[in-house]
Amino acid sequence: MEAMEHSLGLTESKNFTYEGEISLTSKKILKNINICYETYGQLNKNGDNAILICHALTADAHAAGYHSPNDKKPGWWDAMIGPGKAFDTNKYFVISSNVLGGCKGTTGPSSINPDTNMPFGLDFPVITIEDMVQVQKKLVDFLNVKKLIVVGGSMGGMQAMEWTISYPDMVKSTIIIASTARLSAQAIAFNAVARNAIISDKYFNNGNYYNKDFAPDYGLAIARMVGHITYLCEEAMHSKFGRDFKDGPSFDFGVDFQVESYLEYQGRIFVDRFDANSYLYITKAVDYYDPATKYGSLDVAFKKTNSRFLIISFDSDWLFTPEQSKELVCALIKAGKEVSAIELSSPCGHDAFLIENENQTKIIKSFLKKDEDAK
Amino acid sequence: MEAMEHSLGLTESKNFTYEGEISLTSKKILKNINICYETYGQLNKNGDNAILICHALTADAHAAGYHSPNDKKPGWWDAMIGPGKAFDTNKYFVISSNVLGGCKGTTGPSSINPDTNMPFGLDFPVITIEDMVQVQKKLVDFLNVKKLIVVGGSMGGMQAMEWTISYPDMVKSTIIIASTARLSAQAIAFNAVARNAIISDKYFNNGNYYNKDFAPDYGLAIARMVGHITYLCEEAMHSKFGRDFKDGPSFDFGVDFQVESYLEYQGRIFVDRFDANSYLYITKAVDYYDPATKYGSLDVAFKKTNSRFLIISFDSDWLFTPEQSKELVCALIKAGKEVSAIELSSPCGHDAFLIENENQTKIIKSFLKKDEDAK
Repeated sequence: MEAMEHSLGLTESKNFTYEGEISLTSKKILKNINICYETYGQLNKNGDNAILICHALTADAHAAGYHSPNDKKPGWWDAMIGPGKAFDTNKYFVISSNVLGGCKGTTGPSSINPDTNMPFGLDFPVITIEDMVQVQKKLVDFLNVKKLIVVGGSMGGMQAMEWTISYPDMVKSTIIIASTARLSAQAIAFNAVARNAIISDKYFNNGNYYNKDFAPDYGLAIARMVGHITYLCEEAMHSKFGRDFKDGPSFDFGVDFQVESYLEYQGRIFVDRFDANSYLYITKAVDYYDPATKYGSLDVAFKKTNSRFLIISFDSDWLFTPEQSKELVCALIKAGKEVSAIELSSPCGHDAFLIENENQTKIIKSFLKKDEDAK
Repeated sequence: MEAMEHSLGLTESKNFTYEGEISLTSKKILKNINICYETYGQLNKNGDNAILICHALTADAHAAGYHSPNDKKPGWWDAMIGPGKAFDTNKYFVISSNVLGGCKGTTGPSSINPDTNMPFGLDFPVITIEDMVQVQKKLVDFLNVKKLIVVGGSMGGMQAMEWTISYPDMVKSTIIIASTARLSAQAIAFNAVARNAIISDKYFNNGNYYNKDFAPDYGLAIARMVGHITYLCEEAMHSKFGRDFKDGPSFDFGVDFQVESYLEYQGRIFVDRFDANSYLYITKAVDYYDPATKYGSLDVAFKKTNSRFLIISFDSDWLFTPEQSKELVCALIKAGKEVSAIELSSPCGHDAFLIENENQTKIIKSFLKKDEDAK
């Protein structure tokens, strides 16, 4: 348990139920929404030292620390959150919550539909990034946070930017990592393949598989394989796996190459921790996100916010590219905002935002110091 | 039928059965192999004016002309094959055949297994590019061809280069377009996803679906969708589809974006013309191809051939990249071969080899002229 010494130690997930109704982008209504969240550090009297961590496609509220002394791994962003770390819990009150539509405690398609007492399945309304942020706002209000810093990588970056659009007066600083203000056609195409794999799985059963013997695991595993191809750049795949065989050519259709073995493994372990319907809902939310179209142009979308921005991209990220980060930076500058931007060199592709902790820590600490100095 | 005036007019597929046995790379034996082929133009007395066209992943023997006056489309490379065209049938005897393992007339997994009188299915042996070429050689011998020019794009380029390795004295000139001497880890990964989609389809039934009500169409369509993402570059997808909706956001899991509609359409029409088992076998052959590893290095692989080479690549091709063509060119130069190489600019990605006909025609004519002048 040596690693725990450098972390927050034991942390726990809590639940908050927003008992009112929320009107979604789709015009549908959701009520009694449960939000699974964790907090690290203490909120100050003014309620203005909060950092909200927004997670990517498949993560959860458990961002830092260990849930039990026997846990082999800490929360998914433990390297960045804790005493003295990039998001320093000695100074900040850090909040992390599972997104709406997820399957890690927050209301989503696997939750019980109060109208039927059965899991929602595809009766769950299609949600958007704006809806996710709206739900996070209810949590933040419940926690008495008045001003906050919002942070996110990948889809988390979309939520972070949406916070500054939806709640322009509440966000002091925004950190957007390996993200984009809208998916490319190619990224939508990959998500479409993933959803098709899930929906055509023999056990999908139109989303009603929760009380059955089998879930659409094959489809979900294929979706995850597609995802992992896009998370690693070609060079990273080449240096990790090359054309190495697992055990030489099989002359059958089992796993031959190391890269196949890696993808199969990623697919297999994913189905144990994620819900196929949630994958449909969350990828759709990501596909839809497009504030530039919604507001006419991206700079107009950001016009009202008083937030400062830090935009980090990675040169080998071909899913959410440095060019897409540049578009975002240009729009923010056009909107008259204070923007720091950096393109980091990394061989890790899109995954870099979960790996390049040392460089990110330096940059983020320096960006946050300006907030701290202003006090 | 105006288009026919500029083409070969009516053409037809023929069949040749090689009645002997062929020993495959896997050490398995195939016998009585049928080869579906077409020929255009006339073979000269010396049998040395032949051009063998090798097709890519999913094409067939019908490369040029029309099979019936009512055909809406000619053969798949009609723009390049015919009187006065790049492969000029006034001068050359052009041969095109369906590959071993295919589903367009040449023996493959959907063919009848003479031992069981049932379709082979997965009892068909796993084949390699070398095996495909070995079978083409039987056809070429049957047609009394003594010397030939071999041409291919994409997987066809692999066959073309293998011809110069397997039959070094027989090939005069080789034209390799948008190809590579070995797939990248990323390209293998995409093929692995495609095969997983087919194999996990509810109607795959371990490859025994030929006499059933349903075939693994969902899986094959997903495989094709993945393929099409890799055939178009990101920029081409962006300019073709951008983020345009088909009919605005549906807030369900049907087709929302034009790019989804395109991929779904490509998947849907593909299942009507292709066999899922053949897709497994042919992608596996492509994955395995790697003469550099087989011979220790790529230049050693090409050492024995007397062929000249023309290598064409496209700047926007991210599946079989210009860098991979450069590796090939370097190996050929190291092996002391005569090589012409050009990287063409095209917005069409990997698909460019089927689209950029005008530029390719100029380059190929000029390359072939040297053969003609030498006579």
